Amino acid sequence: MTQPASLIYKPLGIDTLQEHVAFMHRDCHICKSEGIEAQTRVELRHHNKSVIAIVNVIHSDLLDCGQIGLSLNTEQDLGAKQGDPIEVMQAAPLDSLSQLRTKIYGHKLDRHGFETIVSDIAKGRYANIHIAAFLTAMASRRANVQEVIDLTAAMVAIGERLSWGVSPVADKHCVGGLPGNRTTPIVVAIVASAGLTMPKTSSRAITSPAGTADVMEVMTPVTLSLDAMRAVVDKEGGCFVWGGSLALSPADDLMIKVARPLELDSDAQLVASVLSKKIAAGSTHTVIDIPIGPTAKVRSKEQADQLEHLLNQVAFANGLNLKVVRTDGLQPVGRGIGPALEANDVIAVLRNHPQAPTDLRERALRLAAEVLELCGKCPAGDGYRLANSIVVSGQAWEKFLRICHAQGGFTEPLRAPIVHLVTASVAGTINAIDNRRLARLAKLLGAPEAKTAGVQLQVALGDTVSRGDPLFSMHAEAQGELTYALTYLDSHPPLLIESQ
Amino acid sequence: MTQPASLIYKPLGIDTLQEHVAFMHRDCHICKSEGIEAQTRVELRHHNKSVIAIVNVIHSDLLDCGQIGLSLNTEQDLGAKQGDPIEVMQAAPLDSLSQLRTKIYGHKLDRHGFETIVSDIAKGRYANIHIAAFLTAMASRRANVQEVIDLTAAMVAIGERLSWGVSPVADKHCVGGLPGNRTTPIVVAIVASAGLTMPKTSSRAITSPAGTADVMEVMTPVTLSLDAMRAVVDKEGGCFVWGGSLALSPADDLMIKVARPLELDSDAQLVASVLSKKIAAGSTHTVIDIPIGPTAKVRSKEQADQLEHLLNQVAFANGLNLKVVRTDGLQPVGRGIGPALEANDVIAVLRNHPQAPTDLRERALRLAAEVLELCGKCPAGDGYRLANSIVVSGQAWEKFLRICHAQGGFTEPLRAPIVHLVTASVAGTINAIDNRRLARLAKLLGAPEAKTAGVQLQVALGDTVSRGDPLFSMHAEAQGELTYALTYLDSHPPLLIESQ
Repeated sequence: MTQPASLIYKPLGIDTLQEHVAFMHRDCHICKSEGIEAQTRVELRHHNKSVIAIVNVIHSDLLDCGQIGLSLNTEQDLGAKQGDPIEVMQAAPLDSLSQLRTKIYGHKLDRHGFETIVSDIAKGRYANIHIAAFLTAMASRRANVQEVIDLTAAMVAIGERLSWGVSPVADKHCVGGLPGNRTTPIVVAIVASAGLTMPKTSSRAITSPAGTADVMEVMTPVTLSLDAMRAVVDKEGGCFVWGGSLALSPADDLMIKVARPLELDSDAQLVASVLSKKIAAGSTHTVIDIPIGPTAKVRSKEQADQLEHLLNQVAFANGLNLKVVRTDGLQPVGRGIGPALEANDVIAVLRNHPQAPTDLRERALRLAAEVLELCGKCPAGDGYRLANSIVVSGQAWEKFLRICHAQGGFTEPLRAPIVHLVTASVAGTINAIDNRRLARLAKLLGAPEAKTAGVQLQVALGDTVSRGDPLFSMHAEAQGELTYALTYLDSHPPLLIESQ
Repeated sequence: MTQPASLIYKPLGIDTLQEHVAFMHRDCHICKSEGIEAQTRVELRHHNKSVIAIVNVIHSDLLDCGQIGLSLNTEQDLGAKQGDPIEVMQAAPLDSLSQLRTKIYGHKLDRHGFETIVSDIAKGRYANIHIAAFLTAMASRRANVQEVIDLTAAMVAIGERLSWGVSPVADKHCVGGLPGNRTTPIVVAIVASAGLTMPKTSSRAITSPAGTADVMEVMTPVTLSLDAMRAVVDKEGGCFVWGGSLALSPADDLMIKVARPLELDSDAQLVASVLSKKIAAGSTHTVIDIPIGPTAKVRSKEQADQLEHLLNQVAFANGLNLKVVRTDGLQPVGRGIGPALEANDVIAVLRNHPQAPTDLRERALRLAAEVLELCGKCPAGDGYRLANSIVVSGQAWEKFLRICHAQGGFTEPLRAPIVHLVTASVAGTINAIDNRRLARLAKLLGAPEAKTAGVQLQVALGDTVSRGDPLFSMHAEAQGELTYALTYLDSHPPLLIESQ
């Protein structure tokens, strides 16, 4: 290795998402002496931190020869500030790339092999093309069950792993794809009311208009330290915490960000991703909700069969008790799509409001029942009755409020200042709802950053409407966002497919 | 699709190599209305050209909200100039991605499947992660022979295909990895002297200190239009033309640029890459040189066996007559590494100079012999004698000069203004030569951009040297480049491994 040389950091403010990119001038002495060109991989060091980045070469005066630019994620991972010296050198070949090539060439990897790969991914040493190659090499039948077991274990081993000193520790997870499917806060309130431990960590939205953490944040603080989270769980048995700051499966977040533009949803990656996070969060008993529907993530019974089989085997081998529940994924759940609108639905169910959305209530009760039974809180078949009684009695609502107060207080969701009602242009029956495009509309309206933004559905599948009847309302915090959303609406086929 | 909206192009001068990148401000109205974030794929249109790019989001004042930046390759592919309006819209899903996923999930593709993928790659519609996934999905035994045949045919179909109106049309190719292995100009001169047609197109250096086109450019113009090339071949039977402007296999160049940082050399990709270019160039009879050695591309006999088998099958199915020749890949060929230095070696062989490097001469004669025999110019076993007589009689040198004159003239190679001799620090025997690091040194000295720069070897494997004996000389056009190269030399283990 050549000795490292330093360049001075100049912020350029370029967001490349997870790809680490370093910007260097083509006449920079390090580029010349090290033979660095566009797409060369360099190691960057700052204090005791290090990442590997790919180089974009600057041919203009954005940078001087002695300066270096960093993508925002690189700036953050290195903790670099304007004017800091950044050490730059050619990246040494990664040992794990030989493991990656082993897998690419169709051979099997053992746990050690996965550990070296996952460790380098977690440390930011893989470029997107390496992660893409890894995901591809693991897709479909290329990874056998033992490999998914080992990958899952490797992903657990590389991050933090929480321990709660009790058993069972309950958890639940939904294999995404259904707007408004906000059962988690209700399930946690029920399960914790029943005396079980359910230290729930949730994600923010990645591509959807709201993640559970976004919805809960409307009502209570969700960015808790691990110590604060422990205090809430010790006191109330449950919590609603954003998992992002806990580093439970750091490699997973990076893999997800590459899998998405590849439109690659391999069972191997999905199972390793979900189960590694549950195990790392300390769960011993987990219920997995798989919504099935043509615009949901899982589209057929056959797909669900395969996924359930792999989930069960990988969970068993990693010591996790698992129950898969299949649910209807034909249409959105509840009425609201967006943080505050979904929070209203959750509260309506917990408060036993007569107009609370039945679909959300029934899904939450069914999932809570499965958790209660899986954890041995009641005999098989008694879970629904127990869950229902906890909601009807008001215990669930009380527990929900107590958890919120333990996390820092409860706030009623606000209503958006701008509401625009969309009505039926013709009479007819609602025959189909495009979940993906409804989600898109809610995002254009500003969700999840604009907490009160989103879509409020007024109809469901099978409803008949007359001309002028309300279909849904669009909620926005700024007129501009409503305008964007209306433009989108006008230039696309209807979101709700009516037949006359 | 939403209607396209326009942003004004502002050049930023950022070289991302082959990845198409668009830089847009986070507050840009299109980002907001289309939900565009970092790594979103957008379609860009300018006049009648279109590419798909990934977005980097600007959080600074590099751009205004109404402006867009483009990576240099995107600027070039769109023909965009400062101030031009660029239409931007969310990229529609590519049909070929479903074919790509089919392959990723382990199923077989037919020719149509490969055609859709290769077409989208050639049109710049794939991001690097898609190309990486495709290369991975095709690696090793994942692609069967029929698939490599179909991929090769698809790569031919997507580019230009030359036709020469005669048969045989000879070609040769070396499966890289050996510095100074500049047999091509000699082989073309011999084969054309023998009355065969050999319209040779060559590449410039990609990672090496010189490609054949770089070497020939020292002596004659190599950037010829197709018409000019035809005129040369009609007159002299052969040519030495840079193939880069002929668009013979446009998808291939893009795939190579992703394969390299992945360090992925799959036989499937190599065979499809090499043979598609030969077939597209109109060759009917091709000799492939596979140097075998520990620091060459092919490192073992077993690797060569597999590669030869696949080359033969894919060539046969695509109607190409092929002969594979295995050569020694232990050390560089000739004395010079770098355009002008290699040109000197070529000229010395053709002029029958008594100090011409024997290894280069013998390799060139052997390959020319194989071409002559494969094309039926002489009985099997007579090729070497015929090739040798053509060189010894001066016919090859005369033909070489005639081709150069037809291409625009012949110039003697120049000598670098700065020459630094490296001598043995101890007495000993040369036991190993690191081809890769010698190539690196020649690049640091400025090759191939600096035509006279590079390394001139004074010793070969097995030579014994005394302390102070010359090992090699370093040639540079600028003192700074010599300094970089000396720094590299001082900070690394010796390039030539001596034992005492």
